[in-house]
Amino acid sequence: MAIDTAFTELSSFLGDRISRSKPVLDQHGGSETHFAPAPPDIVVWPKDTSEISRILRICNQAGIPVIPFGAGTSLEGHTSATKGGVCLDMARMNRVLSHDPGDMIARVEAGLTREELNHELRAVGVFFPVDPGANATLGGMAATRASGTTTVRYGSMRQNVLGLTVVLADGRVIRTGSQAPKSSSGYDLTALFLGSEGTLGIITELTLRLHGQPEEIRAGICAFPDMASAVGAVQQVIQMGLSIARIEFVDDATARAFNQYAGTEMAECPHLLVEFHGSPVAVSEANTLFDEISQDFGATGYEHATKTEDRNALWKIRHHAFYAVQSLRPGAHALVTDICVPISKLADAVEETRDDIEASILPGPILGHVGDGNFHAILLIDPESPEELAVAKDLAERMSRRALALGGTITGEHGIGMGKLHLMAEEHGDGWAVMGDIKSALDPRNILNPGKLVPQGT
Amino acid sequence: MAIDTAFTELSSFLGDRISRSKPVLDQHGGSETHFAPAPPDIVVWPKDTSEISRILRICNQAGIPVIPFGAGTSLEGHTSATKGGVCLDMARMNRVLSHDPGDMIARVEAGLTREELNHELRAVGVFFPVDPGANATLGGMAATRASGTTTVRYGSMRQNVLGLTVVLADGRVIRTGSQAPKSSSGYDLTALFLGSEGTLGIITELTLRLHGQPEEIRAGICAFPDMASAVGAVQQVIQMGLSIARIEFVDDATARAFNQYAGTEMAECPHLLVEFHGSPVAVSEANTLFDEISQDFGATGYEHATKTEDRNALWKIRHHAFYAVQSLRPGAHALVTDICVPISKLADAVEETRDDIEASILPGPILGHVGDGNFHAILLIDPESPEELAVAKDLAERMSRRALALGGTITGEHGIGMGKLHLMAEEHGDGWAVMGDIKSALDPRNILNPGKLVPQGT
Repeated sequence: MAIDTAFTELSSFLGDRISRSKPVLDQHGGSETHFAPAPPDIVVWPKDTSEISRILRICNQAGIPVIPFGAGTSLEGHTSATKGGVCLDMARMNRVLSHDPGDMIARVEAGLTREELNHELRAVGVFFPVDPGANATLGGMAATRASGTTTVRYGSMRQNVLGLTVVLADGRVIRTGSQAPKSSSGYDLTALFLGSEGTLGIITELTLRLHGQPEEIRAGICAFPDMASAVGAVQQVIQMGLSIARIEFVDDATARAFNQYAGTEMAECPHLLVEFHGSPVAVSEANTLFDEISQDFGATGYEHATKTEDRNALWKIRHHAFYAVQSLRPGAHALVTDICVPISKLADAVEETRDDIEASILPGPILGHVGDGNFHAILLIDPESPEELAVAKDLAERMSRRALALGGTITGEHGIGMGKLHLMAEEHGDGWAVMGDIKSALDPRNILNPGKLVPQGT
Repeated sequence: MAIDTAFTELSSFLGDRISRSKPVLDQHGGSETHFAPAPPDIVVWPKDTSEISRILRICNQAGIPVIPFGAGTSLEGHTSATKGGVCLDMARMNRVLSHDPGDMIARVEAGLTREELNHELRAVGVFFPVDPGANATLGGMAATRASGTTTVRYGSMRQNVLGLTVVLADGRVIRTGSQAPKSSSGYDLTALFLGSEGTLGIITELTLRLHGQPEEIRAGICAFPDMASAVGAVQQVIQMGLSIARIEFVDDATARAFNQYAGTEMAECPHLLVEFHGSPVAVSEANTLFDEISQDFGATGYEHATKTEDRNALWKIRHHAFYAVQSLRPGAHALVTDICVPISKLADAVEETRDDIEASILPGPILGHVGDGNFHAILLIDPESPEELAVAKDLAERMSRRALALGGTITGEHGIGMGKLHLMAEEHGDGWAVMGDIKSALDPRNILNPGKLVPQGT
């Protein structure tokens, strides 16, 4: 069998960094969500770009699928080895290769997590801002074009990756982008690989844009009488161009869940959580303006603070939201939806989603990065109930279609993977066929993370 | 002949919006720079996307090249019809289709110029920030991934285009991106077409990100004892994350040229010109900080103002720089170079370039968008002297190689066209072959702006 031959060939240079043991395969073939387990045939732990190049040459010749694996925090089945093959566990490639405060850039290996990077940068007064919540690897974040709470201020991976080292399907190694802040030199291959979910090449190294630690950080939270007023305040803040580093929404169900979970007595209504970064003068100005705007929309009890421990206390509901919501239904699985709409359509999108969930049998608190028009419902389902899974999938699908009808997109930050493949034609029309053409051109044998993102062969 | 048949077929639905008259062809086959005239066989003025789709179906079947043409302000021979064919003059597609201040976005046709758009937006308090100097069309700016003086604050076309309507080689129409602020939905086709220079598809409509008119604008200028101190101040400003909307450099030669041209008595030394956008408090804080930093680097005579006419007076040297430099040598042609380097390498890049030009026979003042690490030398050559053209090309090529050696790129904003084709392999290695593979996949008959950007068939 091709896979046995490949195992022998790979073992010859990977030493003990290769495994076919069942627990290891299972660990790499699961998913954070509802997808059926789909383990690879082999897991390898490459240590550098040239080793990955060698692995890909072997797999490409043999037509064996290759699935890159970061921290395994993806939510759309991105790492499932639906056709078997070799899983590239990037855990050993977790070095910071260089960081240059003069240029505010860092070069890192793809298996480094964002928290590891920021830990290393703390001493030099800079940080990497993209924060998807999970402590994902930077390669995984690049592969899904991740964003998160700070995107409203600092941008997503799209704005914060200057260049990539990528191993192509046939083993060739390319370096995209440069260390300059911008370029008009040919097709934007960096942008093409960002969000390509391992289907066009294996991202092995990244050049990242860093940002200075803000002189001051102020965080705040306030309560709104209803969803519409909270979202209205967000729209006003964004339209005024207020310099805000984070602006997060949690709904009344999340507040209720948090009170139960943490034994607190928060008002059980929608909240906005905000953070301002900058000079004390600029932060104070923005903070005052936010307070005024939110009061115009009926907000009450605005609390804010600058000290780290006080800020963490104010933001506790956001940091613990996922666990608080899960505790509503112990043992349940979460299906986390993810859509993004134009800011002007945010209130419609959130309210229609809330109504749709309330009319269903499932609990599904709503929260999100509303400054980007991006929000999630956390649908809690009985893992033993196919019926509940079907209901959750229907709700998620209606959310996606709602986003499209409002001029938005079926995913703000989680990506396509397998979970949203069936909606791609609706969003992109012939653009999806173009994605397939690009895939075929770069990976003619379809070895790179097959079964994800692009149209699947007939 | 195929072209005659195409002319007949195109005439059947284009009415008087088609021409084969020699003056029209010549006007569309010239270039702003030194490239030999290369007129198309036919010029058409399509009025909408579906007409362009029809034109492309015809041309693709007949294997006739199609060259999109905006305002003709490109500097690298992008619109030369080196293989004849049909030039798509986008002048009739210059409508603002919609603008929504609620979402801070506008939908426009590709033939609209940026000044026309901003004129229309002025009344509603928003603007489109990308400013490459020339009054280019927005489609052309997208096709070259243009940037300019405000990129240090607002980003380039990469950050300010949310979506595109594109007609593919075979006439299919796709819509990339969405109206949502971000998306993780599949390959980033918007980014792929930005900077593709008409070689992958014809951009017919754009969804643009708008920005609120700043509450206050303050502009300033100061003089530095030498190039190194001016560039040092820029590095410090960028590294501190000072909120600056523009930061432009002009060298001593530019100041001398401007004094001659305008009869002024500016200090004939390097200058920095800056602009701050924001609330009065934020602008004042940034302005004071800039003044302090620049004084640390030896700057003198910092003048600044907020009223429009005063700001324009302070920035006169920048607005008239190109004409002032050209007046140094009446009748000369300008070859404008364009490189971009990491901020930490800016001083090296600028000084080595200055020394290289001074050792040559040509005048070549240096200026640029130094906040992005991007600068230009304006090399003045006798249009009758092949020797001077060769010297200028050598200087430009050494600049490009210098940029690569310093971790930068051969073009910050002008693009590749024909002028930098021979340097692409040096910058991108096998990445250039990947660009060629994408080109072949999307335009198998190579009808879209042939001879530009990608590897040319053997």
